[in-house]
Amino acid sequence: MVEQQTILSKIRIVLVEPSHPGNIGAAARAMKNMGLSRLYLVNPVDFPHEKAIFRAASASDVVENAVVCANLAEAIGPCHLILGTSARQRRIPWPLVTPREGAQQIVAQHGAEGDIAIVFGRESKGLKNEELQQCQLHVNIPTSDAYSSLNLAMAVQVVAYELFCATAVLPEEKVWDHPPATNAELEHFFKHLEDTLAEVGFHDPENPRQLMTRLRRLFLRISPDQMEVSILRGFLKAVNAISTRGSKQ
Amino acid sequence: MVEQQTILSKIRIVLVEPSHPGNIGAAARAMKNMGLSRLYLVNPVDFPHEKAIFRAASASDVVENAVVCANLAEAIGPCHLILGTSARQRRIPWPLVTPREGAQQIVAQHGAEGDIAIVFGRESKGLKNEELQQCQLHVNIPTSDAYSSLNLAMAVQVVAYELFCATAVLPEEKVWDHPPATNAELEHFFKHLEDTLAEVGFHDPENPRQLMTRLRRLFLRISPDQMEVSILRGFLKAVNAISTRGSKQ
Repeated sequence: MVEQQTILSKIRIVLVEPSHPGNIGAAARAMKNMGLSRLYLVNPVDFPHEKAIFRAASASDVVENAVVCANLAEAIGPCHLILGTSARQRRIPWPLVTPREGAQQIVAQHGAEGDIAIVFGRESKGLKNEELQQCQLHVNIPTSDAYSSLNLAMAVQVVAYELFCATAVLPEEKVWDHPPATNAELEHFFKHLEDTLAEVGFHDPENPRQLMTRLRRLFLRISPDQMEVSILRGFLKAVNAISTRGSKQ
Repeated sequence: MVEQQTILSKIRIVLVEPSHPGNIGAAARAMKNMGLSRLYLVNPVDFPHEKAIFRAASASDVVENAVVCANLAEAIGPCHLILGTSARQRRIPWPLVTPREGAQQIVAQHGAEGDIAIVFGRESKGLKNEELQQCQLHVNIPTSDAYSSLNLAMAVQVVAYELFCATAVLPEEKVWDHPPATNAELEHFFKHLEDTLAEVGFHDPENPRQLMTRLRRLFLRISPDQMEVSILRGFLKAVNAISTRGSKQ
């Protein structure tokens, strides 16, 4: 039996370019109320700020310990499971879960080494497509059609609440033979894959269409482990070797 | 099959003596995001206020249509099901549910005529014992021991979110032969009961101990219908008649 706190301590709440320091503070309070403590801020517009401390109330420690990052990759790099909150359905549908299902997924996959990230977008326009495409799962908070835009800190509250509920009673830990690949490892793999696809003339970077998007979604959905990524990259390297040899002839 | 909106439109969100107008606005936004629209304010400290409108964003209509009441009875009088949010366990335990269980209870009992109320206490010290004793159920939002005090609007958000989720897929309507008693009817009954108990010498208003508290909890838990209350009061009237006759001899 794992402790609730063991899982919650692995979870990073990542806010991408939050505009209002008050929302950062309110999100920090919501986190601490639900046993979360690890706040990551990607390019915050106005931080540090006294409003963040004020709205955090007794969670000012969460604000003070927040990690400020220059880009999303820095905030999620070592994570093996990344969920991105999204209000809209995208052109290419991504695996979409409710906050409850997302929390269950985290409980099911927490056993691996490394962290888990839940990414929240800007107050005004959420996450960009390229940011959402770095996530395995998209989380959609159900809302009324009459007014679907939640305040940022409220969205953090709902997701954090579901995490707290889902980890209150925990099932047995799942067993796996290799650790899951981290975000950084997967990004290296995607870069390698794209280069190789271009190299063999299957992919035209000048006219990419949705090729890489579909491939990203596929591999992210599988959540490959490190051994699997290593095998895939071994294959790509073999392709590269042949391709280089061919161009020399 | 009942419509989600049919249930949500019966629900009153009652804030007792909220101090901060910003919390009123944030609660209104949380409500509208989750399909709720009926806000009741009991003795708000600072209302109307531009901060309430500002924080409500596109839910300013909910703030503008809020009903201001002089006391709690006015806000919940016509309601047949009343839930009160509570952080603490009281000396005499009351039926206590999670927000999820509370939402399921509302779905199970919504079929009756009249409204349902969910009562939230003051930012600083919640609901008083006598306010909580007007509720059938107490709702406790699960929180971390490290910091258990949720912001008022956040508590509204969590409860509203559970209501929205619980009403998204609805079971068949339950059938009942008489409408449930309203809060006002139950309060008349409790007054009649207490007077009668004193009249027959079973109850000493000068030294009440927990007698009425335990009786309130009992009858509130049963959620009696109007016919049942009418029968109970018929019995009390019969007791009154005998007692009066006895004292005249």
